[in-house]
Amino acid sequence: MSSWSGGALVEIAEPECWELLRSHRVGRVAYDDGTGPHILPLNYQVTDQNTIRFRTTPHSSLGLRVKDRRVAFEVDEVDEERHAGWSVLVRGLASLVDIDLRPTSEGPAAWPRGARPLVVEIEAELVSGRRLMEP
Amino acid sequence: MSSWSGGALVEIAEPECWELLRSHRVGRVAYDDGTGPHILPLNYQVTDQNTIRFRTTPHSSLGLRVKDRRVAFEVDEVDEERHAGWSVLVRGLASLVDIDLRPTSEGPAAWPRGARPLVVEIEAELVSGRRLMEP
Repeated sequence: MSSWSGGALVEIAEPECWELLRSHRVGRVAYDDGTGPHILPLNYQVTDQNTIRFRTTPHSSLGLRVKDRRVAFEVDEVDEERHAGWSVLVRGLASLVDIDLRPTSEGPAAWPRGARPLVVEIEAELVSGRRLMEP
Repeated sequence: MSSWSGGALVEIAEPECWELLRSHRVGRVAYDDGTGPHILPLNYQVTDQNTIRFRTTPHSSLGLRVKDRRVAFEVDEVDEERHAGWSVLVRGLASLVDIDLRPTSEGPAAWPRGARPLVVEIEAELVSGRRLMEP
């Protein structure tokens, strides 16, 4: 057995990336908060136009920093026992769709308690995915 | 029922953050690849000195970009049905510990197939965690 053995990494085609994104509800957004990269998990929705939407508060680090900035959004599923899984990455510009006081009219209602009127949208410039096959 | 209902977000104290980091094997590193934030899931190890170690290839986007840069590292567990979970975030400088051709001597052997001789270490400057309680 090679000392560098392990499962193969296989690229996931874009249509399947979108299927995987639509089949999940929680992902992670990475943005620069001014001191470096930051990662925040949150619940999201994929729109019919293949954009990613989520809600936050206007005064949060995320709410203050994402407008018209490049961000990354990631969803994955990993089996730690089998050393296998997949991940999908979306990269693109984030914009503010709306400041919407009606929780369900635009974007998904955020899971944590408290008002999150800011609806943020990521327009995908790059979508990529990788599957780690079981060794 | 309030339209902004949901579970409470509760801060996780640093000792428990480290317990959670030690109890998992896969996290996500966010770094700037020159065009914006990037997120990559990978398997890691927590050292006795409370640093995060993982392996990559010298010629990968990650390998080329993390040396002496600020990065974020995140581990989480979410129950999508119950709208509950937790996440831990580590922020700090990444450095190259070693270029080590022996897969198991330093840092965890990477799960994907292929040589990953670069051992990267994140020294934690900030560690924080949040638990989303079931609504």
